Amino acid sequence: MSGQAAKENLIRLAHGAGGLESQQLLQELILKIFSNPVLNALDDSARLETPPGPLAFTTDSYVVDPIFFPGGDIGRLAACGTLNDLVMQGARPRYLSLGLILEEGLPLADLEKILNSLAAVLREEDVLLATGDTKVVGRGQANRIFINTSGLGDCLPGVDVRAANARPGDALLLTGTLGDHGIAVLSQREGLRLQSPLTSDVACLWGLLGPLLQALPTLHCLRDPTRGGLAAAVCDIAQASRVGIRLREKELPVKPEVLGACNLLGLDPLAVANEGKAVVVCPPGDAPRALEMLRAHPLGRESRRIGEIVAGPAGQVVLETRLGGERLLELPAGENLPRIC
Amino acid sequence: MSGQAAKENLIRLAHGAGGLESQQLLQELILKIFSNPVLNALDDSARLETPPGPLAFTTDSYVVDPIFFPGGDIGRLAACGTLNDLVMQGARPRYLSLGLILEEGLPLADLEKILNSLAAVLREEDVLLATGDTKVVGRGQANRIFINTSGLGDCLPGVDVRAANARPGDALLLTGTLGDHGIAVLSQREGLRLQSPLTSDVACLWGLLGPLLQALPTLHCLRDPTRGGLAAAVCDIAQASRVGIRLREKELPVKPEVLGACNLLGLDPLAVANEGKAVVVCPPGDAPRALEMLRAHPLGRESRRIGEIVAGPAGQVVLETRLGGERLLELPAGENLPRIC
Repeated sequence: MSGQAAKENLIRLAHGAGGLESQQLLQELILKIFSNPVLNALDDSARLETPPGPLAFTTDSYVVDPIFFPGGDIGRLAACGTLNDLVMQGARPRYLSLGLILEEGLPLADLEKILNSLAAVLREEDVLLATGDTKVVGRGQANRIFINTSGLGDCLPGVDVRAANARPGDALLLTGTLGDHGIAVLSQREGLRLQSPLTSDVACLWGLLGPLLQALPTLHCLRDPTRGGLAAAVCDIAQASRVGIRLREKELPVKPEVLGACNLLGLDPLAVANEGKAVVVCPPGDAPRALEMLRAHPLGRESRRIGEIVAGPAGQVVLETRLGGERLLELPAGENLPRIC
Repeated sequence: MSGQAAKENLIRLAHGAGGLESQQLLQELILKIFSNPVLNALDDSARLETPPGPLAFTTDSYVVDPIFFPGGDIGRLAACGTLNDLVMQGARPRYLSLGLILEEGLPLADLEKILNSLAAVLREEDVLLATGDTKVVGRGQANRIFINTSGLGDCLPGVDVRAANARPGDALLLTGTLGDHGIAVLSQREGLRLQSPLTSDVACLWGLLGPLLQALPTLHCLRDPTRGGLAAAVCDIAQASRVGIRLREKELPVKPEVLGACNLLGLDPLAVANEGKAVVVCPPGDAPRALEMLRAHPLGRESRRIGEIVAGPAGQVVLETRLGGERLLELPAGENLPRIC
């Protein structure tokens, strides 16, 4: 390939300037991948016909480094992460926005691969890309690509699964192994050689949790243990609901390669990010049926009951250790694992 | 100030890690500035009660450099820019999301100033910040601060002002001078000394255009001439509506200091960004009343009729020059003015 041809396959500042090259990028790449009647109108805003009833609205920016990692990439992450935030509100995902910040020199082939990953999730989940924006910054002024997605979903009627709804006596369920996403990204970034290949768990949880919410609208809380891991998710629930939580360490599923990497790096697997897992709080009577339903879905096969909600001390999470001791689980502090999402 | 104290006043990676420091930033800065019942729930998604009828949904990322400029900053821009995209769909702005990407080392005082600017616009326009997210990347991996905002608004009933709605015979109005924002940002960035101080026109246009849309729901198109300037906005309308457009150069208001800077830099003022102006296309009979209403508002005092929609050639914009000639106005190409929004 000649130098000129190679240059033509890279993102240039003009792709973000709002003129001819912006229009070409939109027509020749973005609309080819995401074409749908709402997006194709190309007005300053999308016009959405939404059903009556409350809407869920959320936003997240993605700065993961590296942008391609075992089991996914920043595009798949930017779709699943935001859709999952809707699901955690008991909402069916409907529309996504896409804000791209591209570094000059990003290969167009990388962008295409990332957008195709994102689009594959939207197709699978029947979600429309409604609106978007592309900015380009000079070399060294961003890190290849940052993505913001905002999501809109329809709240399921009669469902209220906010973090503030846990009650003493409730069962605490977890839908699978801990730390896979964080360690998969970190091992790629740091060039760690794990005992066996580990992939990120990044996945949209509507397929797993939508039917559960419809069958058991009495569930009390849903939360996905992303940044800050399980520790941050359960601390949030304990604080928001003003309850205590007891977790049994021996029930917490962690893959041996994740545990090994955590030991090597001095990380607590309970504080490492997941991108395809959920914490479910439900009345104890709902737990058997919930576990049965979760385990019947490919994303929930390893679901299990990991603890209980107790009256107090309010806001405190106690971990019953494997050795029979107890330790207080706190909101993780410090940098821990930067840029895993 | 000791080195330690100085360090405590800067953004650190831990502020984006989802643990204790993230919570502190949220509680001690963000919620203090934006506190409202929707945001304060702090769940993974906001839950919105929306009225029946179509919603407008839009997103934009802001990467302006410098982040403080005469007449505004990236915070004011990130509020006004996105709210204006809703207004251009004929929608009343209601909710905003806020996605922050911060560079390690950003002074907390700068962040506070930017968020206060953004919050001031929301208060003025009666818009709620519904949801947000903060990521932090290492030094040199972003340029101080990038902001994404997505907006939701209620489409006014009976209003349809898409770019595709212009019809031959319609009048083309412009609400004020061209190029103020782009040249204000550029002059700050390049250290240009202008004849007189120039400030960005960045402003939310709901106050100017909301009453107009309610009084004259028969308006045909609204578009704000941001990136790519007036040239991109009118080319968009001509292409989307498959009509021709004739503009009269002598009617285009450009401040002498903007014209001077453009001449110096080899820029076309018609291709320079505005952040507080609108192009209005309306039936010719509505033009006098529309101009009267626009001129009665502080943001529209210099409104004027700048041209007409004609049958063809479809997609073409012709500029009738001051000297009596004609030139074809094309979608701007190339980098022109990077990072002005």
